[in-house]
Amino acid sequence: MSAIWALCAALLVQPASAEDGYDLWLRYQPLPPAQRGIYAPSAAQLVMPATSPTLVAAKEELLRGLNGLLSQAPATSERVSKAGALLVGTPQSNPQVAQLDLGLKGLTPQGYVLRQRRVDGHPTLVIAANDDVGVLYGVFHFLRLLQTQQPVDKVDVSESSRIQLRMLNHWDNLDRTVERGYSGASLWDWHKLPDYVDPRYTDYARANASLGINATVLTNVNANAMALTPTYLHKAEALAKVFRPYGIRVYLTARFSAPVEIGGLKTADPLDPQVQKWWQAKAAEIYKIIPDFGGLLVKANSEGQPGPQDYGRTHADGANMMADAVKPFGGTVIWRAFVYSNEQPDDRAKQAYDEFVPLDGKFRDNVLVQVKNGAIDFQPREPFHPLFGAMPKTPLAMEFQITKEYLGFATHLVYLGTFWEEVLREDTYRPRKGSTVAKIVDGTVHNYARTAIAGVANVGVDRNWSGSQFDQANWYAFGRLAWNPMLSSKDIAEEWLRMTFSNDPKFVEPALGMMMKSHEAVVDYMTPLGLHHLMGRGHHYGPGPWVEGGPRADWTSVYFHRADANGIGFDRTRKGSDAVSQYAPQVAAVFNDVKRIPEKFLLWFHHLPWDYRTKSGRILWDELVYRYTRGVDTVREMGKTWQSLAPLVDSQRHAEVAAFLKIQEQEAKWWRDASIAYFQTFSKRPLPSGFAPPEHSLDYYKSLEFPYAPGHH
Amino acid sequence: MSAIWALCAALLVQPASAEDGYDLWLRYQPLPPAQRGIYAPSAAQLVMPATSPTLVAAKEELLRGLNGLLSQAPATSERVSKAGALLVGTPQSNPQVAQLDLGLKGLTPQGYVLRQRRVDGHPTLVIAANDDVGVLYGVFHFLRLLQTQQPVDKVDVSESSRIQLRMLNHWDNLDRTVERGYSGASLWDWHKLPDYVDPRYTDYARANASLGINATVLTNVNANAMALTPTYLHKAEALAKVFRPYGIRVYLTARFSAPVEIGGLKTADPLDPQVQKWWQAKAAEIYKIIPDFGGLLVKANSEGQPGPQDYGRTHADGANMMADAVKPFGGTVIWRAFVYSNEQPDDRAKQAYDEFVPLDGKFRDNVLVQVKNGAIDFQPREPFHPLFGAMPKTPLAMEFQITKEYLGFATHLVYLGTFWEEVLREDTYRPRKGSTVAKIVDGTVHNYARTAIAGVANVGVDRNWSGSQFDQANWYAFGRLAWNPMLSSKDIAEEWLRMTFSNDPKFVEPALGMMMKSHEAVVDYMTPLGLHHLMGRGHHYGPGPWVEGGPRADWTSVYFHRADANGIGFDRTRKGSDAVSQYAPQVAAVFNDVKRIPEKFLLWFHHLPWDYRTKSGRILWDELVYRYTRGVDTVREMGKTWQSLAPLVDSQRHAEVAAFLKIQEQEAKWWRDASIAYFQTFSKRPLPSGFAPPEHSLDYYKSLEFPYAPGHH
Repeated sequence: MSAIWALCAALLVQPASAEDGYDLWLRYQPLPPAQRGIYAPSAAQLVMPATSPTLVAAKEELLRGLNGLLSQAPATSERVSKAGALLVGTPQSNPQVAQLDLGLKGLTPQGYVLRQRRVDGHPTLVIAANDDVGVLYGVFHFLRLLQTQQPVDKVDVSESSRIQLRMLNHWDNLDRTVERGYSGASLWDWHKLPDYVDPRYTDYARANASLGINATVLTNVNANAMALTPTYLHKAEALAKVFRPYGIRVYLTARFSAPVEIGGLKTADPLDPQVQKWWQAKAAEIYKIIPDFGGLLVKANSEGQPGPQDYGRTHADGANMMADAVKPFGGTVIWRAFVYSNEQPDDRAKQAYDEFVPLDGKFRDNVLVQVKNGAIDFQPREPFHPLFGAMPKTPLAMEFQITKEYLGFATHLVYLGTFWEEVLREDTYRPRKGSTVAKIVDGTVHNYARTAIAGVANVGVDRNWSGSQFDQANWYAFGRLAWNPMLSSKDIAEEWLRMTFSNDPKFVEPALGMMMKSHEAVVDYMTPLGLHHLMGRGHHYGPGPWVEGGPRADWTSVYFHRADANGIGFDRTRKGSDAVSQYAPQVAAVFNDVKRIPEKFLLWFHHLPWDYRTKSGRILWDELVYRYTRGVDTVREMGKTWQSLAPLVDSQRHAEVAAFLKIQEQEAKWWRDASIAYFQTFSKRPLPSGFAPPEHSLDYYKSLEFPYAPGHH
Repeated sequence: MSAIWALCAALLVQPASAEDGYDLWLRYQPLPPAQRGIYAPSAAQLVMPATSPTLVAAKEELLRGLNGLLSQAPATSERVSKAGALLVGTPQSNPQVAQLDLGLKGLTPQGYVLRQRRVDGHPTLVIAANDDVGVLYGVFHFLRLLQTQQPVDKVDVSESSRIQLRMLNHWDNLDRTVERGYSGASLWDWHKLPDYVDPRYTDYARANASLGINATVLTNVNANAMALTPTYLHKAEALAKVFRPYGIRVYLTARFSAPVEIGGLKTADPLDPQVQKWWQAKAAEIYKIIPDFGGLLVKANSEGQPGPQDYGRTHADGANMMADAVKPFGGTVIWRAFVYSNEQPDDRAKQAYDEFVPLDGKFRDNVLVQVKNGAIDFQPREPFHPLFGAMPKTPLAMEFQITKEYLGFATHLVYLGTFWEEVLREDTYRPRKGSTVAKIVDGTVHNYARTAIAGVANVGVDRNWSGSQFDQANWYAFGRLAWNPMLSSKDIAEEWLRMTFSNDPKFVEPALGMMMKSHEAVVDYMTPLGLHHLMGRGHHYGPGPWVEGGPRADWTSVYFHRADANGIGFDRTRKGSDAVSQYAPQVAAVFNDVKRIPEKFLLWFHHLPWDYRTKSGRILWDELVYRYTRGVDTVREMGKTWQSLAPLVDSQRHAEVAAFLKIQEQEAKWWRDASIAYFQTFSKRPLPSGFAPPEHSLDYYKSLEFPYAPGHH
């Protein structure tokens, strides 16, 4: 009885409208009164003529933010007339901005400054830029300072991005399924577009603009030609119209065989004049409907997609043909380097490099080649892709995967900022020491005229947008790193936690600890020591180290782990597939040398005996068991930490995260137990003492089937 | 410039948290102060011991409602001690209820009373029932009175439903697609169940309980045997646990061949002892996991589904075998009568009757046969199914379709209450005048021991639940009519409008007008005068009167309209397929006689020449054109009416409805134009003067393709 009454009481105190995560990091909840008191004098007046849709959006956001955070909006004025004014705009939009020396000249497009200045004698906080989108970004920056309770009275910020295109790639299909999507159906309600425009599209644009994301590819790289038909172009235009004020341009994926499928031609040969004409006409048609259309993203001759090689042409032939078509309209072609073929007997990890390096210098100047962070496929951890640094004459875009295809889907708490930072910091040594991946991608090393970072989106119609509360952090971290690849993933995580949950250090510190160790944990319980591609076949849900057979060797697990009675690992040394030689000599020397290679990549490059002595002193088999177990333990600890934070988090979001952490713990254990049970059939060794045996038999784990795992269509 | 400023101003006044429809008809927004003043004295104190999870839910709802509507909750007390108390409970849960003579004896299960009584000398409003779910229903009834601003000071209500099972049928698949679903993916997140229980499941249960819906079939009638495996039963159990306090029992669909597919048997023959044993064991397994499991819904030998006829057995053999399996646990089998076969050359409309009538009396007492409202398939309008009244010894459940498969999907505003009322009021004349469909279904006529009304759900993850704001009204109307099939659809619509939008008569009256004429409009612009089944093939989106060929004649349009140079319509008279003779003689005489048949069913039963003179004086061809056009005109008027209501509706919901009405108008015109263009090729007649010709050529309409129309998988 008393338990029921307690339940009843608990239910009754809950607020009517619970926090569900929809507001993302833009919650603008009232700050503590003391903090409001500190900020109020710096927002006493607003001078911000809104002379364009972008400035209207910026002004609306600023007032929404101030109304929320400070529980009051400043009075608007035509000129600064008192202390604590906010002066916002471009030299064109705002005469008083034009009169100030703000250091705007050095900014790249969409860059901005926040400066404290005296204007007509009044202390004034200035948010200014050369272009309207920069002003919008500056407004978001200012609000972020307030949300994270940073001082603004001496603010002196100048922000410019070296990355021109900061893009989301949506792998969204026209039937609203999302390939590798774990956050519900596609946001794009194609059936009701263009006539019904969901207000949510605006919130999507706001979230992206708050991070500086300025490009979105609406459709799946496994493309459908129908997306380029007038019907769908008009639907895309309705989205472009919503995104335009927020500085976001729309891109589409182009199916290489579209001239055949929707054009009625007999060929899609890029050297065929009729094909070229078809793409030119298609480009003209697109730009007539969407004048600021960004361009085309293409996956060709990869995993069964059509491409120029079907006609004996090269990737450059294909890309250039499309580039010529969009060039007159200022369009860009982004050509993916994620290619491999099962007819090719060589190590799959080597194929993209082998195909693309010879093409360096052969692409038109409006082509970018988009390279995944690693050479296999978005594994929990991969060494950086050897293409970075190897194509000095071809702008290379980075492709990260925000959606957690190989990382436990929506329910596993895995903060990816640390992993992306790790990749961006790697030194390619091309042409010399210090040529980090970040400096390749941002154009510093090779003076690329074009730069881009793309992320495969994790956004869907789930109320929390990303499938889980903490997956929002990956969208956030991607955007922040795309703006500035030199940022610290830890700083980003802290910023996100403060905006999304709480500024209370009693919350921030433990939650930050969870995030910062979360990637290492998933690597431990899924693929420790450089193991990779061991997930369930097709859907990639759960462990499948036993996957073999089927249509393609390079779609099996046994191809990648190569476990046998003697040992485990893929020999990519000079004695093996020699993938190491695709790296600069300084890097290759490290990867090739079992003594020098970081242990995190050990089995990526080396096949080693079960009793190989690792740095811990444990033999390889014991070290594997140790790491699998450590991963599970870390997740269990994360769960405990989260439980302890219950008083500091609203109940609905706390409960969701807690439930997911419990699922993660179960699945981490499943990964550990299944992997150990399987690899033990090769190692024939007992578990080290103190380590529990797998809960079930190997046959049990192999018997599990998940035909309806999400994200697989 | 000034336009931009105006836009800016408009944006800034919008409330932070817009109304999006999530709260359905349970919004509990504050009543006007005067109205609050009237109600406050009747809610001065709450005496409601909550001794069960259901009573906790009821109490929570009551306090949530009062907190919202009156902006204050009553003080709780152990006994009535002042005027204006609310005394709530059962005689078991609440001693003061037990002392009153409230007329509880005559109630059916889950029935309730609302009475004004003096308790210990204090005027008291009593909400009481014999069981806890009845109390919950009574609470919702009380809140509805407040929401619709009805007087409560003299309230004297006794509510009992004659329909025992008021069910939703979800056609939801395990991959979260929904067959004929137009409101986003399935609510059931199977992948995360049972470990993650979305709080939305509780809101779903609340909405259903507010209407008296007490059963939900979680899975598609085109069933997947995997839903009966332990993995999925545990997922279903997690949902059952959420729904239980709200009086809702969970059902599943059973694939007839499950013993083969998941049981490892070689046959699913219902007379095979091994098969019988398998189902008995399966039933035991289900009830061990879900002790209050409702039962099984079965679609067998219909549209390619397996069934007893595969083994030369009858529907009764199949149903009884399953009924015997669930009987020891109190389970029910609901067997669908929606059967037809393309090997059968006879009129598809006749087949269910022909198959099922001979089986009357042969079903076990825990079997219901579920019959669609009409004999074809949820057409915009159909005559009532001839099975109603024809199976006196077999309880027949009514199956309505709430989701708008043949009715324009989510964007067409079509209130179905009027149509369902029309069907329920039809007189079967079996065995005598006055034997309406409602009285067959509620058991009055044949003394059925079991009664049920089922609705194919229109609920999905869309924020507004049903795909559109006005589609919520169909969920609502279904629930209200399932509770009491004698209710007026107009009263229901008004009730819903008041709860969902506004009590302002300036809003209610015009909006009610829109709803009340909306069904007639869709019949006009899609299938006037008894035409039927003319939609696009497969997805049923848009007009497809030209659909012919393909695997089955009865899946084409030409099978149903039979237009030729001489005329149009399906001859189901005694001279034709003689479907009329499946009705009682009094009904058959009317349907058979072209002079007596209501014109709304004219071409359903008669093939008539193009120059046949209709009641309006127009020849048939002209009348068709007139009605198609009238349908479009009505939708245009609805759009204008809605525009005029803008000041009375919150902006987000107003904009959504307005956009949808615009789509509906375009699509109504498309229906009209395509249908006229097509039928004109037979009639060879000009349009009557003053009627615009179709906008495009027939070839244009025929060329349109919609491979990604929603709801079709």
